[in-house]
Amino acid sequence: MAENIQTITYGAITVGQRATIERLVEEKDILLFAAASGDNNPVHLNPDFAATTSFKKPIAHGMLSASFISAAMACNLPGPGSIYLTQTLEFLRPVYAGDTLRIEIEVLEKLPKNKVRLSTKVFNQKNKRILEGEASALLPNESQLVKMSALPQATIS
Amino acid sequence: MAENIQTITYGAITVGQRATIERLVEEKDILLFAAASGDNNPVHLNPDFAATTSFKKPIAHGMLSASFISAAMACNLPGPGSIYLTQTLEFLRPVYAGDTLRIEIEVLEKLPKNKVRLSTKVFNQKNKRILEGEASALLPNESQLVKMSALPQATIS
Repeated sequence: MAENIQTITYGAITVGQRATIERLVEEKDILLFAAASGDNNPVHLNPDFAATTSFKKPIAHGMLSASFISAAMACNLPGPGSIYLTQTLEFLRPVYAGDTLRIEIEVLEKLPKNKVRLSTKVFNQKNKRILEGEASALLPNESQLVKMSALPQATIS
Repeated sequence: MAENIQTITYGAITVGQRATIERLVEEKDILLFAAASGDNNPVHLNPDFAATTSFKKPIAHGMLSASFISAAMACNLPGPGSIYLTQTLEFLRPVYAGDTLRIEIEVLEKLPKNKVRLSTKVFNQKNKRILEGEASALLPNESQLVKMSALPQATIS
């Protein structure tokens, strides 16, 4: 993942430009998200409790799927060099460990003052809508080659 | 954190009801969030790169602060038993490792069909607004005693 990315400028970005990212959700991701956020709701962490709910088994935090949108915004479109301004989120369906999500970002509109408005959608492997919303971001005027970082390696004990 | 929480029903929740949570943001939280989300933008992970940006040093992912809102919604108000429906987010200022955030949730309105609308705000230790938005959630009719889970322990290698 430590690739170099040429940043996208406000001048160069176009309405209709898209990025699609696939992402397998593993149990480990749910545990890491719980640790980072402090969310210890048993619907995410306790299979016995989750079995008593309408979800039947532990679900991923909705905001974890939103974090995949955030990562796609930061790393793909509009990518590094852009500044995340706003995001709306509508949580539509549960996500389970083992699901493969598809995150779709599309530029909807170029706004004044270097801002763009984007559609942000997440689907599961059955092509069912998981999460939908819109985002806005501020884009740079100058392009730059950005060396992406190595992802931190985390383990659950 | 493995306490028992009595869930809040739609009948019992009141407009103006509030929860306030304080949360220290550590570098480890930023690394865990990067690992969980897959966001390897160097503005969060590489001090040398961050020094070349307007932020001067690595910033937390905006969606990490949103995750603290999500955790407060899931664990405090409306708490376990509620279902997170929507969230709007306006990212207002950067967050750095070492900042202590205050997450404020307030019930704004009881909506039909067991839904509530809530104000969700995050401030830093200088009382500056970091993140603002609104959320909605679906509340249960029956109260239940929920045993919260132990938070997973994660380490960065």
